Parts: sequence; structure tokens; C-alpha cells
Amino acid sequence: MIKHPVFHVEPWSLRERALDLDVLAQTESVFALSNGHLGWRGNLDEGEPHGLPGSYLNGVYEERPLGFAEAIYGRPQSGQTIINVANGKLIRLFVDDEPFDVRYGTLRSHERVLDFRDGVLRRRAEWVSPAGGGVRVSSTRLVSFTQRAIAAIRYEVEPLDGPVRIAVQSELLANEQLPPGTGTGDPRLGAALDRPLTQEFQSTHDHAVIVVHRTKHSGLRIGATMDHLIDGPDPRIETQAFADGGLVAAAAVLAPGQRLSLIKFVAYGWSGVRSLPGVRDQVWAALTAARQTGWDGLLADQRAYLDDFWDRADVEIGGDTEVQQAVRFALFHVLQAGARGESRPIPAKGLTGSGYDGHAFWDTEAFVLQVLTFTAPDAVASALRWRRDALPAALDRAAQLGLAGAAFPWRTIHGEECSGYWPASTAAFHINADIAAAAAGYVDATGDVEFERDTGMDLLTHTARLWRSLGHHDAQGRFHIDGVTGPDEYSAIADDNIYTNLMARDNLLAAADAAEKYPDRARELGIDAEESASWRDAAQSMHIPYDEALGVHPQAEAFTRHQVWDFDHTSPDQYPLLLHFPYFDLYRKQVVKQADLVLAMHMCGSQFTAEQKARNFDYYEPLTVRDSSLSACTQAVIAAEVGHLSLAFDYLGEAAMMDLQDLEHNTSDGLHIASLAGAWVALVGGFAGLRHWAGQVSFAPRLPEGLNRLAFSLLLRGQRLRVEITQASARYLLAEGEPIKISHHGTALTVEAGKPQRRRIPEAPVRPQPSQPKGREPARRRPVSGSPA
Amino acid sequence: MIKHPVFHVEPWSLRERALDLDVLAQTESVFALSNGHLGWRGNLDEGEPHGLPGSYLNGVYEERPLGFAEAIYGRPQSGQTIINVANGKLIRLFVDDEPFDVRYGTLRSHERVLDFRDGVLRRRAEWVSPAGGGVRVSSTRLVSFTQRAIAAIRYEVEPLDGPVRIAVQSELLANEQLPPGTGTGDPRLGAALDRPLTQEFQSTHDHAVIVVHRTKHSGLRIGATMDHLIDGPDPRIETQAFADGGLVAAAAVLAPGQRLSLIKFVAYGWSGVRSLPGVRDQVWAALTAARQTGWDGLLADQRAYLDDFWDRADVEIGGDTEVQQAVRFALFHVLQAGARGESRPIPAKGLTGSGYDGHAFWDTEAFVLQVLTFTAPDAVASALRWRRDALPAALDRAAQLGLAGAAFPWRTIHGEECSGYWPASTAAFHINADIAAAAAGYVDATGDVEFERDTGMDLLTHTARLWRSLGHHDAQGRFHIDGVTGPDEYSAIADDNIYTNLMARDNLLAAADAAEKYPDRARELGIDAEESASWRDAAQSMHIPYDEALGVHPQAEAFTRHQVWDFDHTSPDQYPLLLHFPYFDLYRKQVVKQADLVLAMHMCGSQFTAEQKARNFDYYEPLTVRDSSLSACTQAVIAAEVGHLSLAFDYLGEAAMMDLQDLEHNTSDGLHIASLAGAWVALVGGFAGLRHWAGQVSFAPRLPEGLNRLAFSLLLRGQRLRVEITQASARYLLAEGEPIKISHHGTALTVEAGKPQRRRIPEAPVRPQPSQPKGREPARRRPVSGSPA
Repeated sequence: MIKHPVFHVEPWSLRERALDLDVLAQTESVFALSNGHLGWRGNLDEGEPHGLPGSYLNGVYEERPLGFAEAIYGRPQSGQTIINVANGKLIRLFVDDEPFDVRYGTLRSHERVLDFRDGVLRRRAEWVSPAGGGVRVSSTRLVSFTQRAIAAIRYEVEPLDGPVRIAVQSELLANEQLPPGTGTGDPRLGAALDRPLTQEFQSTHDHAVIVVHRTKHSGLRIGATMDHLIDGPDPRIETQAFADGGLVAAAAVLAPGQRLSLIKFVAYGWSGVRSLPGVRDQVWAALTAARQTGWDGLLADQRAYLDDFWDRADVEIGGDTEVQQAVRFALFHVLQAGARGESRPIPAKGLTGSGYDGHAFWDTEAFVLQVLTFTAPDAVASALRWRRDALPAALDRAAQLGLAGAAFPWRTIHGEECSGYWPASTAAFHINADIAAAAAGYVDATGDVEFERDTGMDLLTHTARLWRSLGHHDAQGRFHIDGVTGPDEYSAIADDNIYTNLMARDNLLAAADAAEKYPDRARELGIDAEESASWRDAAQSMHIPYDEALGVHPQAEAFTRHQVWDFDHTSPDQYPLLLHFPYFDLYRKQVVKQADLVLAMHMCGSQFTAEQKARNFDYYEPLTVRDSSLSACTQAVIAAEVGHLSLAFDYLGEAAMMDLQDLEHNTSDGLHIASLAGAWVALVGGFAGLRHWAGQVSFAPRLPEGLNRLAFSLLLRGQRLRVEITQASARYLLAEGEPIKISHHGTALTVEAGKPQRRRIPEAPVRPQPSQPKGREPARRRPVSGSPA
Repeated sequence: MIKHPVFHVEPWSLRERALDLDVLAQTESVFALSNGHLGWRGNLDEGEPHGLPGSYLNGVYEERPLGFAEAIYGRPQSGQTIINVANGKLIRLFVDDEPFDVRYGTLRSHERVLDFRDGVLRRRAEWVSPAGGGVRVSSTRLVSFTQRAIAAIRYEVEPLDGPVRIAVQSELLANEQLPPGTGTGDPRLGAALDRPLTQEFQSTHDHAVIVVHRTKHSGLRIGATMDHLIDGPDPRIETQAFADGGLVAAAAVLAPGQRLSLIKFVAYGWSGVRSLPGVRDQVWAALTAARQTGWDGLLADQRAYLDDFWDRADVEIGGDTEVQQAVRFALFHVLQAGARGESRPIPAKGLTGSGYDGHAFWDTEAFVLQVLTFTAPDAVASALRWRRDALPAALDRAAQLGLAGAAFPWRTIHGEECSGYWPASTAAFHINADIAAAAAGYVDATGDVEFERDTGMDLLTHTARLWRSLGHHDAQGRFHIDGVTGPDEYSAIADDNIYTNLMARDNLLAAADAAEKYPDRARELGIDAEESASWRDAAQSMHIPYDEALGVHPQAEAFTRHQVWDFDHTSPDQYPLLLHFPYFDLYRKQVVKQADLVLAMHMCGSQFTAEQKARNFDYYEPLTVRDSSLSACTQAVIAAEVGHLSLAFDYLGEAAMMDLQDLEHNTSDGLHIASLAGAWVALVGGFAGLRHWAGQVSFAPRLPEGLNRLAFSLLLRGQRLRVEITQASARYLLAEGEPIKISHHGTALTVEAGKPQRRRIPEAPVRPQPSQPKGREPARRRPVSGSPA
């Protein structure tokens, strides 16, 4: 946990003013750079000390056998684990023959800044070696949004006082040793794989090194190359290769005022099918292009890319500068995770660490794509195309399970199911509806008809078929989906999970609508009138359990009859519960890991009355322990909707600070991309009350006491709708384009270009605030105000 | 599957008249010898060919890591697997320098006979080598019931026609190569462990060899020794040792009429705590004692032991000689599995093979001990003392699960849970009630007060505590046990499984009664009046779900609302379903692997009306696929009770022929001891209608058309009650002792010594017979009559 104020609050950057080795791994995640294709953790330039070294390429994984005690039909035999590819970040420094290592000598100052607008990580350190040689090191690192194969570093060293002899080694190193214990014990950590890369090719040329490796089991070929521009007083430069990599070294004696500077261009590429020369030449080409652009060109392109992003995506906050910083930090990382994935998944931790084995889960579709749909829709189309490309594996999986349609994997990199624990994976079929909902939501927001006809319809059809075969009618004609696991991972294998049933219902209806809209594609997909009618019938007959006695919805059949977890005898150090109690006990009791019925009220809110929402929220709140990072934002949204604005503000704070304060204690192996997305969801879905269903865009804005302003834009069918909210009113603006119909607290209105509409905000209903399990209350959010630096 | 009549039908032995190598592994199981401490599979004397070589010592196992995909709290890290100890059965033969191997040369005749009264396996073979040397080999093998460390073989070879040069090598061999693939793929096979034994000591002396080994991980020390008496025309005898063992060889030239004969005594011993000299000397001592008894003495003692057993345990059948043979075969193997276990478990496959890793499961208590209680009660006390000795592990396990009392393992050798799949192991808490019921049943039948005060009360108390903490009261005061798995392994993690609830109820009441009866022990165990009152309260409030609409009991809450398995589209080669469908799909549908509610009606029959039993049986019969060998006997019992006598007879046939016909296709890795016990259960519980609850012994005899007589004895509090049943009447006899109160079809009667009581058998109710899933009908039983050979 990052307990003390490591980071300085400022609006457009994240600044760490001193180095704290106790939270080094966490800061490596926080300072990670990525473009969705290539990711570099914020490891120190010199490589050591480190928490977890990490250089990742989206889609590059190794297979590992999944052991078993008893063989079980349908359990995957092997898993996929993200691997650490060649480290191109490494720049080692020797000062008068002593290695620059912050653990030795005297670190006079150390500052790192992640700049959200420039898209770079800057570092500045002043260090005196044990022998007394003092240097100032400055580096700027970027992973390019505009040239996705490229990362680059500008590295500069100068004497602090007297002259020093300097040697800089810029390295490209594969098969780095990872910290012992990576991947054991805690189920949320990735599995360590020892030396996953086998070298196929290596060469050096002037100040450049290239290596090509191959993974042993997954058979992927990975190329990495680096080249350098070196400037300084008559430096001696040497290039060499060795097993697992190569380095370019520059040595010089620097008098005060002199500098040795180095610009390092690194290019990566990989392929599962292309030949060794193909991959080798591809990375050389990327490097050539980057050198042609040059360091300044890369910097300028990066800034332009981000200016464009912030112009449409920024969220402005009044009254809480810490939340202002956090939401920009969140948006920056969400963009980094998805920007250039290009038909690859968006993993749960992006490319910021090897946590969760580098797998993508449902939370990408349910949370991350929600944000990107309105801020970077191309990234959504790309992520969903990856799902479409993975349909063959999902169709096979469904067939293996005896089901029709497609059963998407709970966790995967390449598309095959990688979980060995089916009650919390295979049984969590809701992922299929989450994917369908993301596709429908994207089409709805963008009007991307080509995607709808093609990718969208493929996804909707095969998931609808899954639901139709998964459920069944009872003697009274009600449609049930039995024995599945909903979002709450502290329940499993239950009948009629309401989230699942409602999401499946939407999925079935959306597929039927699409089949009606595109009859030619429906024919291609073999959908006849009987099939689409059976989808509508199942959707309309979908059973939604209700506990009449309590007047609430059970999250699944019988849930509200079960024993309530003994929260009073659960001590604070027994959270997260999954590390201290067996699933057996969690599953059979009323204890909720993360919003489930409450998420249903967000995603399928039209299916609940306002009174039901309020009662349900109050019922689930004392049962919900938030052992998942995917809960606070949803609780914020519904708390805001039912009128618990102060509580919603607390949850916004938790979602926004998840990684900046390491609230889940595992930021060290990567950021929680979906929780970061949740900061936006809490603000826009919560305090602005955005709901977006079937062409309807509605707002129900209402700010908590701590905020006096919330302003943001949404991309809607290519137009930019701007929303500005204060305590008293909301203002809706459209700079140009066709009028947009929206609703404000239930009242329809049309926003025309250049004619802002202002509406009053009604009073919030007054309701007693529900309690949380003992010790699991969210931290009370105290707005950090004052003018930001 | 053993499809053709391999075995000849005769009353007191199992005779195989020709060798069929296709079913060699199955016959090795069928011909296995054991005394519950030491087991030898029926491998051919010369070792090869073999299906699965096997020499086992009860309790000797090796640990193996249980791999995992995701770490899960409470999942065992390592498992226990029975290992093949030094093979002392081996006697290799060379005929004119050619190895005697039935796959080569000409096997003129081959016969094996398992003699149920002599307790030996006899073999006789006539073989002509490829070079033309003909020999007759005769061997007799026993594993001694009276000297539990001892096995012995008499082996004789003589020329068939002309003179032959003979060399016999009697071997003791550890770390035998096992067939490749042992323990992979099918979850029911044991895990192979490569070379589990490390040699610690070895020596030879005259015609004797001794070896002491140790297991690498479990740290068990195992000694084995052999000595020989050799007789023949001037044999040359050599003794030698080598890595992994030693051998004694005898060579001679035999003229027609001459014989080389060898008597081999083998002694085994093991310990987890004793020193090398301790274990070594212990096996030497056992060998010395066996030599003192001599071969004829061992044979005579074996016969006397079995005469005594059959005198009290035999079941006589009129009208079906095949069932007569099968039930004696079954009783013989049940005795072999339990006779001399002496505070060790009775594994699911006894000591006849390495299937199920050599683990003991609930079926020992639920089925095997039921039989032994009335036929060999000392074996029951011993098996339950093993459970009592394993209480520390069970208490630890309960604590790990957050529960009070003891949670016994689903599968184990030493006492620790060895299953890595908790929904079908940890969640199957009913094993605790099964153990308690076996203890209560043993006390009830034997009146063993010392056991009751001591072992019995320990077991009842700690299991009652488990139930009390596992269940909870709802708002209406009903006591529920949620999220558990009952006997039917095609359902899991359900609420209020009726079998579990009723068995838990009995367990709670029995514990409260015992605490009342033995207040001093109750004090020792910390049971106060509040605690035992809370047990009675939970028992009395136990919720038993009932489906009013269908008028049947759901085996667990909501079961009868679930979708019925699509039996019509399940092809015969898709059984057993667990090898072709995911648990996910099985669990959520109405499909029953093995009797569950029907077993509840047997074990807790007083809780159901006759009408309920009939309706329930008819409801579950079309859902029950009998993919477990633990089902047919229970279906036989209830089918007989509700009046489906012909169907009960079919199920008796299936239970009785399970291993003789290899109906489950895995007799190759060991016999199904519980199913063998089930043959007795089907006859005595089914056609005699024995029920035994809380001091009440009742009968409701009624024979199916195929049988004209059923006679057996029961040991009740040390007295022998004899029951003789015909189609028309039942006769109850007591040779001596105090009068016994029983009931016959609901009418109380007292049987006094020397005054047989005869009662008429009422007509069976006429009911339409229910159907079974397509293709899963039991084979129609056609009685094999005629006078047995």
C-alpha cells in the first residue's frame, strides 16, 4: 500500500519527488508507458534495483502446463502467460568505475514525472558515488502512440562538481531474471516462466544491435533492435553482442559543464506466422522509420496525438484537485492500454505488469470499453475485432461444452480458455453478454454500420445462440439460466443470476434486431425466422427472481435465504476473503465480492424501478466487501442514482485512487485498467448520470458536496457533446453537427449546434445512508482543494 | 469388459479354465489375494505378461505435488498415492534355457482357481517351449489371514514328456516398471510414480534375501524378505542380491516323474517411525514365525480362519448359481479388504490395484462396513479406529475451512485431504455423517460399549460439531445446510441435499444421546448442556425440501425445477457422462450419477412414508444413469422395498457382477470393494429387507421370481441370528443366547434360542415398473440355474 503522499498533486502530470524503494514495484506500474502494442514498465533506466522488470508485447505469451489432481473433462491442459520480452530500456551507468545504483552512495535528489500531455516519463537524479563522483542524470522516455513498434529514450549525464569518468552501456537484454516467487501463492500473480526465449538471430552494426527470439511452446517469433545517437566530448563507443542480447557502450571523461547524451531508438515486432527474415526486417524497418522521424519528431507527434485525445476526452473537475489528477492519470492509462492494440486484447493490467498472467477478462468489455466508446472509439472496434477473430476458439469451446454458439474464454491472451477453475471461469458465462453489450453499445454510440454488419453481427449472433442453448423453459414457460456464476466471485454456480439473465436478455434481443436489420447477413449466418423468434421468446420469458418477503431482488435464486457472512468476526487482515477462506464457505453465504445485482442496475437499469434500485442498493451495501477493484465505481454509480451522493463520492475516491494508493495491494504487478476506467464511469455514469441504451442518451446530473464542477465531452456518432455540471445546473453544448436528442432527469431535450441548453438540477431524495461490512467502509473522501500547482 | 464366460460357475470358487490375455489386468484384480494389510494382485508367477504388477501394503504411499492453474485457499498442495512395494510373488522359470512365457511356445492348458474356503489361488499350466521342452507348472499362493505380514507360495514344476533342464528364479524386486500411461487421462486411475523406493539395506543369507527401502517424500520405511524350501533332484541353488532386490535360483535336470518344488515364504513390514534395524528385524521375525508354522500350517490356519468366517457370514442362494458364486466371491474380497487392516483404511479398491490412487472414500463406511458389521465386526472397529486416529488431520481441516469439529477427507490414505477438486470432495461433507452412522451402527449391532465410550464418542462428537457449525437457521427457524454436495456426483454445491440433511440429523441426535449416556466423556470432550441441546435443536429443525407440485422430494433444493438431461440425444458411448460432458452441464441438470435421494430412503428410511418412497423411486429412476458402481445395490434395495422385485433382481445382478464382468471398465486397476459389498446389501437389505436403526432390527423379506431361497446369518450383539427365506415364508432362528426382538413386515416378534419362528410373506404391491434413461437399463437378470459343478 502506498500510504504516504508519494505523488504530488498537479493537474496534468504525476510527479514523484523522492524515490521510495519500498514502493518501487508499485511506481514501476504507475510510471509504465504503453501504446497498447508495446509496454515498458517504469523500471529505472539502469535496471537495478527493480520491483519487477517488464517489457511486453501485446499478444506475446508462452504456454505452460496446468497441473491437476484429478483430470476433468473440458479443463484446459495448458495456460498462456505473458512473457517479459527483450528489455530495451536498460541504460547502465558507471561513474569512475562504480555502477550507478541508488542503493549505494548518496542520492541527493530523485524525481520522476509522468506527463499526461507530452506522453513521456521524465527522470532527474543527482547522485554521488561512494567514492565521491557526482553526476546528474536526466532521462526522457516514450513509447510512441504514432509509431507503435517504437520506444525511445533520451539519456543525459553531466558532472555535479568535479570531472568524472563516465561509461554508459545501453543494452538490449532478453531472458532477464525475474524476482523469485513471481507467480506463486497469490492467485492474482502471473506465473513465472524461466528463460522463455530462445535466440534465433543476432547481429550488430555500428551502434545498433538486433536480436530475434522464439518462444519454446507457443512458437512466437519476436524481434527487437536498438540504435543510438551519441553526443559528448570525444566518446569512445563500442558495440557488442552476447548470449541473450547486446550493448552499445560510450565512455568519456566529463569536465563540469560537459555532457554525455544518448538517444536510444528501440523497435519491436513479433509474429506467430512470419519467417525469421520477415520479423527481422520488420523491426529494422520500424527503426529506420523512427530514425527518420527523429527524437524531436517523435516527441512532437506524441504531443499532437495526446492533444487530440485530451481535446475530446478530458474530464474537468472543480473542487478536488486530487480527483482531477487521478481521472487524467486514469484516462491516460486507459488510452495507453487500448490505443494501438489493433485486434489484440486489452489485458486486465494493460501492458503495465505481468499480473493475472497478462490475461484479458470480462472487465475490458464491461468497464474499459465503456470509456473508450465515448473517447477513443477506434480502440473499441479494435478490441472487439480481436474477440471476433477469436470466434473459432469460442465456437470450439461451446461445442466442447455441449452448447451452441460461442463460449468466450474467461481469461486468455490468444483466445483459448486458460482457467483451470471452472466455477469461476467457464460458469461465468456473462462474459459473452458483456462482449455483446460492448459491441451493441459501440454501434449505438458511433453509428459504425460497417462494424455492425460485420463484427457486431458475428458477435451478437453466436452469443445469442449460446444463451438460447444454455437456458431452458420450465413447466410454467419461464426461461431459466441455471448453474452459472455472475460477476460476484464470492458466489458461484447459482440459478438465475439476475445480472446474467438481464444481460442475456439484451443480448438475445439485440441479436434478433440485428438479424431483422441485416437479412442478408442473417442468411449467411444461418439465422432463420424460427431462430430469431426463439431468441425473442427466451428474452421475453426470462425469469427474474424477486424476494417478496424482503422486497428486494436476490442476486441469484435463493441468495437472500442464505446465511449472512459473519462480518463481525472477520478481522481486517482477513481481507481479501479469498486468501483466508475457502470458496466453499464464501459461495454458500451472503457475502458479495463485487457489485453484481448493483451492476445489473447500472447496465440494465431500465428493468428496475427507482424504488427497487434504492431498496436493492441498501440491501447489498452491507454485504459487499469490495475485494475486487471492479466494485467501487459501480457502487458509486448506483449510490449517486439513488441519492447517496456523499457515499458515491467516497467510492469515486476509491476507484480513482485504486492504483495511486495501491488499495488492492497488487499494483506492483500492474495497474487495474478497469478500475482506472471506473474513475470515469463513477464521474460520468455516477455524477453526470449518463445512461446510454438503444439510441437513448440520458443524463441525471447531481454533484456531491465535494465537487463544484464536472465538465466533459462525449463522442456521439462522431459529434462532440459537451456537458458542464455545477451544483445547481447542467449545461449541454454541441459545437457543430446535427442536433442530438438527450434527456435530463427524465425530461427530453434537443441540443442544437451552437445553442447551449442549461437545465436546473432537482434536489436529491433524502435517504438514510446504508452501512458497509465492518472495516470495509470506503475511506471518507475529503476533497483536496486549493489551486493545483 | 469381460464379455464371454471367462469364469466357470461353481459355488465355492472362481475358476478360469483358459488364459485370455485381453482381460489379463482384470483377472489380476479378480484373483488378487489380500488380508487387509498386505495385498498381492493375481499377477502370473513369472511376472510377465502382466496387466498391472501390484504388491501393496495398507498405508504405504508416496506424496506427489498437485499442480494448479490458480492457487485456491484450502486446496491441498500434495496428494498421496499408493505405491507398488517390492514384488515377492515373482518366480521366473527357464525351460532348457528358454524363459517360460505364455506368449511364446504352446500353452496347452492353463487354469486358475480362487478358492473361497481354502483362501488360496491355485494355478496349473502345461506349456511347451518353442524348442519343444514341455513342463507342467503348479502353484498355490496365499496371503495369510492369521499371520498378517506373511504371504507364501508353493511352486512346482515337472516335465510333461521328456527330460528338461529347469532353472527357477525366485525374486524379490522393488521399483518394478509399471505400464506406461498408468495414472493419466482417466481421473479414476491412480497416478504413476517413477521408482518411488530408495534402498536402505540389503542382505542375503542361505536361501533368504532381505531389502529395506524408504519412500522419498512420505518418509516411510518398508522391509521385505523371502526365504525358501527347495526340493528336487540335486538342485544347484544360488542366492544373490542386486540393485532393487535379490533372487534365489535353483537349477536341475528333471526326468519324467521328477519335480522341482519350492516353497517361498515372504514377509513384509513397514513403519513411518521405526528405525532401519527395527523394521529389518520385524520382517525377519515375521519370516521366522512363518517358517515355524510351515506351509502346511499356514494352509490349515487359513482354512480354519475362513471356515469360521463362512460359518457366520455365508449367504446361501437358491435358484441362481451365478449369484450364489458372485455373492461368495464378493464376501471373500470384502473380508480380504478389511480382515487385518488394523487401524488402517479400507481403500475403495482394497489392496487389489492402484485405482483411485489407493484412496479410501466414504463408500467404505456407507457400504463396506454395513456388511462387515454383521459378518466381521472386528474389521469395522479397526477401520473406524483409523478414522479416530486421523481426527487430528480432520480437526485441522475443519479449522482451515472455518468450521468447528472435524472435517474428514474425501479421499486419503494417511488422513489428509488429497482431492484438488473441492466441489466433489470438500463440499461432500456427508462423509462425516457416513462415518458417524457406521460408528453408531457398529455399536448398535455389537453392543461394544468400550468402543462406544471411546472411539464412537470421539467420532460422533466432532462430526456433530461440524454439522452444527456448517448449517444455520433461517428466519423461520428452519435449519439449512447450504452449498454442499451429496452422494450424486453429477450434482454439486446445492442447498439442503436431503441425504446430507437426514444423515446430519441422525449424527446430531446420536451425538447428543451419547453425551447424555456418558457424561464423564462428555465433560472430557467439553460438551456442555447448551451444546448438546443445540445439536438436538438443529436436528429437530432440519429442513427437508419437498416439491408439492410433483409430489416428490427434490434430492436438493430446486433440483426438480432444473432441466432434465437430454437422455435421448446421449449416445451409449457417451457414458460415463463425466468423461464426455463438463461438470458445469451435469451439475445444473436433472441427471443422477448414483443413488442419492434413493440412498437417503435406504439409510434414513423411517423419514419417508411408503407412498413417498414409491413415488420418489419412480421419479429418480428415469434420471439415474449409474455411472458409479455405488448405485445398483441401493436401487436394488429400494426397488425391492417398493415392490419392483424383478427390477431389484436386475440390480442385484449388476452389483454382483460388477467386477466379474468388468461392467465399469476399470476392474483392471482393482476391484470395487463397495460394489462387492453391495451384492450382500442388495440381498440382505433388498430381498430380506433388513433395516437396523437404534436397536431395532426389522425384516421385510420378499424374493424375486428368480430366487427360491435366501439364507444368511447376522451377528447381533455376539449372537447369530439365522434367516431363511423362501417365496412363501421366512424363518428366523437363534441357536443359542438371549431372545432377540425383530420385526417381520412390520409385525414385532421375539426369536428365542432353539425356537425358530416362521412367518408368511405378504403379496408384493403391484406397481408399474419405472423406466431408466435410454441405454442405461440394467441387464435383465436371467437366473443361472442347474446344479452347480
